[in-house]
Amino acid sequence: MVSKLKKIESVALYSSRGTKNISQILNQLYEICVNLKLRVLQPSSSVLKAEGISKNYSDKFIKKEADLVLAIGGDGTLLSCARKFGINGPPILGINLGNLGFLNDIAPDNLTNSLLEIIDGNFTLEKRFFLEASINGKLEHDIALNEIVIHSGSIAQLIEFDVFLDDNFVYRQKADGLIINTPTGSTAYALSGNGPIIHPQVQAISLLPMFPHSLNTRPLIVADSVNIKVLPYKKSYISYDSHSTKGLKRGDEVLIRKTDSELMLMHPSNHDFYSACREKLGWSLGVPSKSKT
Amino acid sequence: MVSKLKKIESVALYSSRGTKNISQILNQLYEICVNLKLRVLQPSSSVLKAEGISKNYSDKFIKKEADLVLAIGGDGTLLSCARKFGINGPPILGINLGNLGFLNDIAPDNLTNSLLEIIDGNFTLEKRFFLEASINGKLEHDIALNEIVIHSGSIAQLIEFDVFLDDNFVYRQKADGLIINTPTGSTAYALSGNGPIIHPQVQAISLLPMFPHSLNTRPLIVADSVNIKVLPYKKSYISYDSHSTKGLKRGDEVLIRKTDSELMLMHPSNHDFYSACREKLGWSLGVPSKSKT
Amino acid sequence: MVSKLKKIESVALYSSRGTKNISQILNQLYEICVNLKLRVLQPSSSVLKAEGISKNYSDKFIKKEADLVLAIGGDGTLLSCARKFGINGPPILGINLGNLGFLNDIAPDNLTNSLLEIIDGNFTLEKRFFLEASINGKLEHDIALNEIVIHSGSIAQLIEFDVFLDDNFVYRQKADGLIINTPTGSTAYALSGNGPIIHPQVQAISLLPMFPHSLNTRPLIVADSVNIKVLPYKKSYISYDSHSTKGLKRGDEVLIRKTDSELMLMHPSNHDFYSACREKLGWSLGVPSKSKT
Amino acid sequence: MVSKLKKIESVALYSSRGTKNISQILNQLYEICVNLKLRVLQPSSSVLKAEGISKNYSDKFIKKEADLVLAIGGDGTLLSCARKFGINGPPILGINLGNLGFLNDIAPDNLTNSLLEIIDGNFTLEKRFFLEASINGKLEHDIALNEIVIHSGSIAQLIEFDVFLDDNFVYRQKADGLIINTPTGSTAYALSGNGPIIHPQVQAISLLPMFPHSLNTRPLIVADSVNIKVLPYKKSYISYDSHSTKGLKRGDEVLIRKTDSELMLMHPSNHDFYSACREKLGWSLGVPSKSKT
Repeated sequence: MVSKLKKIESVALYSSRGTKNISQILNQLYEICVNLKLRVLQPSSSVLKAEGISKNYSDKFIKKEADLVLAIGGDGTLLSCARKFGINGPPILGINLGNLGFLNDIAPDNLTNSLLEIIDGNFTLEKRFFLEASINGKLEHDIALNEIVIHSGSIAQLIEFDVFLDDNFVYRQKADGLIINTPTGSTAYALSGNGPIIHPQVQAISLLPMFPHSLNTRPLIVADSVNIKVLPYKKSYISYDSHSTKGLKRGDEVLIRKTDSELMLMHPSNHDFYSACREKLGWSLGVPSKSKT
Repeated sequence: MVSKLKKIESVALYSSRGTKNISQILNQLYEICVNLKLRVLQPSSSVLKAEGISKNYSDKFIKKEADLVLAIGGDGTLLSCARKFGINGPPILGINLGNLGFLNDIAPDNLTNSLLEIIDGNFTLEKRFFLEASINGKLEHDIALNEIVIHSGSIAQLIEFDVFLDDNFVYRQKADGLIINTPTGSTAYALSGNGPIIHPQVQAISLLPMFPHSLNTRPLIVADSVNIKVLPYKKSYISYDSHSTKGLKRGDEVLIRKTDSELMLMHPSNHDFYSACREKLGWSLGVPSKSKT
Repeated sequence: MVSKLKKIESVALYSSRGTKNISQILNQLYEICVNLKLRVLQPSSSVLKAEGISKNYSDKFIKKEADLVLAIGGDGTLLSCARKFGINGPPILGINLGNLGFLNDIAPDNLTNSLLEIIDGNFTLEKRFFLEASINGKLEHDIALNEIVIHSGSIAQLIEFDVFLDDNFVYRQKADGLIINTPTGSTAYALSGNGPIIHPQVQAISLLPMFPHSLNTRPLIVADSVNIKVLPYKKSYISYDSHSTKGLKRGDEVLIRKTDSELMLMHPSNHDFYSACREKLGWSLGVPSKSKT
Repeated sequence: MVSKLKKIESVALYSSRGTKNISQILNQLYEICVNLKLRVLQPSSSVLKAEGISKNYSDKFIKKEADLVLAIGGDGTLLSCARKFGINGPPILGINLGNLGFLNDIAPDNLTNSLLEIIDGNFTLEKRFFLEASINGKLEHDIALNEIVIHSGSIAQLIEFDVFLDDNFVYRQKADGLIINTPTGSTAYALSGNGPIIHPQVQAISLLPMFPHSLNTRPLIVADSVNIKVLPYKKSYISYDSHSTKGLKRGDEVLIRKTDSELMLMHPSNHDFYSACREKLGWSLGVPSKSKT
């Protein structure tokens, strides 16, 4: 975790869905920012616009000018915000809709104080890396904060593929697909597929076959510096954060690695990853026993 | 991986079991070393002694004087050798008995050439960390290369405990026990308990409840720099590499962390972690398709 | 489920632990029974005795004379009660201590009405089978309602054994042990070991290796009419309901099968297995959508 | 297992794929049958036709006239053959292509002797049930021998649904889908999803959520007499044996139950389910120790 950052003077407000609830939080955030004498920037890609602002700015401009982007919505909104502004952009802070997410930790019932704290510099910054893919040597535009999935396109349909890590052959696998996820993604889709929970601080990537044909595969955790090569034997698909999807054909060579630039995810200073685990995953909520140290 | 090392002139031969097979490999290794004009050191803690040597040396002397320790036997022998000589000691190279292990990669049918290669400097060195434990503030003598387990002492007997990571409460758990394992240990006992495979290069520790009472626990992978505190609520036990065991009582505070000094594990230059996975875990053995790069 | 039964006139009150809470429920049950003009029988093996009764009866007498045994306590008390009185004995009804169990469905805050309903014939009877074992041809005295476990006696200690079903070889397994459980036991220890949930109505037995050495074992569900033969290769142990344990040696032949006589477990008429699952396992508790039929 | 059957005089030869290998086995089977003075019937729905036969018969005619159907190919061919002829039809015997399947146990290198044995009455018959579905009260034409899957239609796409068993609410689930499988299907797709292996003799159906959103779901095994109702909350799909698929919409009521009529699967008399498990799943192949009985 890092906590150095230049003074926050310009804030962008981003949303990816148009509910009434989000609209109200957006307008509230706008007023708070105005009262705090902050410059509020409206990205043209935001689905909702604050009532007081008429001017829109391009994503490129936002990345250059904003000192902070507030993503208003669920974890899906933060993912989309991160993919848009997270590479070489300002930090992103997630505002949730009342339910703590793994990525959004500011609750709507305490916006003013939470923002005041942030502007006063009481926050931490956490680096989260993205995954990018090259297909046959050409870098793809899409990136993923959670996971890249190579799959058959439909349920109960096998594909076959070879996996190499740093050019070492790992396995040939028959499966519905392969989830390649970041620690950030370990509490998302990969968790439903029985993958382990990986703390965001761990510099690792997880490889998890989906409905594998053989019984002896297990999740494989490798260093995040690794180059992952997947060679499909059949028509298949590559998906980024379950968001955008592209076809692959037999003989394609897919190279997956972490991006050079990383997301700066902002948290209030009382942020606690394990508290989110307990709340989101239903772990024991009881007060812990007194620790001696 | 590192590959710098001073010239190998003194070699210690270590075994932890007394089979005829091991005895023969030991004597063969002794002869090869003598022919290579190497000084051969015999640790007094080795179960078997090479026929040509009469003098024994203390573990302390071996750690100071040997440039390399050869561990002859299965993975269990290498574990025991590593715990004895691995902290601030010379590199260790595993000689197996014909079955590739995860830690032993020199096969008995090719001892001479393999050793020649090693003496010529054709090897890699890989760091592997140990886990150590303090109980109520006092550092314990035992260490573990695979895993530390805190458990009830018997099958189907629950204990209850709190876990803190860097003083953040994680969960209260009812389970038969908790496996805390290194990447090295991820292909050992933890794998039987459905833990993920963690490449040795990943700087992480895995926490895996054994027969947990609640259904929503998952393996948890955290950075290897983390301080793990476990507070048992009942009489329980702590075990190191399923080797030495000690009692714990309610109220004890167990602090587990990686040791400062790490094992230097030597591999022949063609060593391949994934090849060991394929052979030991029965992964697809088929020849991979030709990769383009 | 069956619901025929002779009129209930004699009731036995059984407890296996001596807490104040249980004592109070016991005395309350005694009074209710007296007011209902029922004959109350006190088993000498019950840990607590109702205040109004001085005479004790042997287990044999209870099995013959009681029309119903009330087991007061948690699932463990019902297990113990079932092993004592369940073979060729009267039905058993579980009174819990305020927390719904899988086996105890009468809550302490509604004893009078619940018992009235039962006496009026508003109940269902469900058969649950036990497992028994013969060692080297000799039938053992102990039985299990949940599971028989054959194990190494300690954590992280492998045993090796062959399994035959109806004299067909199934597998040779290296593992910490083998859980052989009934549907009743599928929501107990086996569930912690990742076994499936088996509805009590399913006529099946589950075999579940514990911490198996090989990665391709899975829970195996077989017909409850099957004869299960386990041949251990090492000193090991056999346990019944995690309760009584006996040593086994290499070469012993353990034959496990369901008992001829089955437990009659009594439920109030509104009993619902899935409701217990939702409450005990934390499944979604939301009100289901209206069903059309 | 049953083994009564009228004398085999008419044999139908069925294939669902057109490889050269299958064509050769088909012609060989035709010759053997002719030499055995059997009447050979060619279903018009068979992909390949034996060279000596010109006449084709409808599936209806085959079901009425054939005393045995030989399905030549992999498990997929036997599934398709079973769905066509298995309901109120003759027994089906699977001829494999050299790899033992779970359903096909006659190997191509021993056709003559194997068929002779069968014609002589040396076989066993095993009942296997199908699953059928009604949507909004209307019975669907498709049936499944392995599994019915209700799913979102694509990878990493959640649906939400309620499940009732015999009109008792079980759970509301968010998942990619739900696999409802027979014991026959337990060694197919459900096994890839971590479901248990269920012996064909067990009268049970398994419910297995796919990539469930919550961590505390487990496979649920229920009696095969149960009526399973699934109410999807979103547009979703129902698939039979990964073969035919149909759309579902929010509010649809899907009722799944076993068919009244069951498949008669024929095996040579040395058939062994566990032997197929060992070979197909890679279980220990070592010769078992001598058993005493």
